[in-house]
Amino acid sequence: MSTAWLDQIDWTPEGLVPAIAQDATSGRILMFAWMNRESLALTVSSGEAVYWSRSRNRLWRKGEESGHLQKVKELRLDCDGDVVLLSVEQLGGIACHTGRESCFFRELEGDEWLVKDPVLKAPEQMYGR
Amino acid sequence: MSTAWLDQIDWTPEGLVPAIAQDATSGRILMFAWMNRESLALTVSSGEAVYWSRSRNRLWRKGEESGHLQKVKELRLDCDGDVVLLSVEQLGGIACHTGRESCFFRELEGDEWLVKDPVLKAPEQMYGR
Repeated sequence: MSTAWLDQIDWTPEGLVPAIAQDATSGRILMFAWMNRESLALTVSSGEAVYWSRSRNRLWRKGEESGHLQKVKELRLDCDGDVVLLSVEQLGGIACHTGRESCFFRELEGDEWLVKDPVLKAPEQMYGR
Repeated sequence: MSTAWLDQIDWTPEGLVPAIAQDATSGRILMFAWMNRESLALTVSSGEAVYWSRSRNRLWRKGEESGHLQKVKELRLDCDGDVVLLSVEQLGGIACHTGRESCFFRELEGDEWLVKDPVLKAPEQMYGR
């Protein structure tokens, strides 16, 4: 497969691109992360989301520990070519490491960020060893 | 209003936070941009999206030229506190400077980014002077 489509992305100086994951069914925004060229290529070839962990400085196959993989249904690119959008089937219905459906579980009400979404599974159960 | 909620955001070293705008009705992801502290405070106080333009290095009130303002219905923060999500009513139904509903109008098919969404209004009409 040609990799011209990868060259069309306007990578940051660090070689990254922001990636937004949206639930293909509910339309809910699940998470925001970063990808490098290798992780995006792997995402497309495997059909499952692979991100680049900036904190761990390594490829991060989403769900590698929790089992909450993301099956990619559609991949989109924005007008400037510098952000990708993944439409995914979220296995387990949980994208957030806190055990919630979405990482965006806090909402501003007045001058406070209030937790609005329930924990579906305790993190100890997701990552317990 | 207390500004403690602004302090709870994990700003980048440049003082920015990524912002995702989602259509409150359709659930469609409209655009991705950046905010600084002032633009986020203005967004909340005015109820309309104000971003920080990194290319122009100034505040950018969405729709200031096109009239396609974004009325903010809900503001969310992610688990790490470093990304905000705006649920908006997109005036004019057009968020992209190309005249499309969403900036994410290209989809990967095979090894090509294909344009999938129609231009609703010619850019010359949006920005014509």
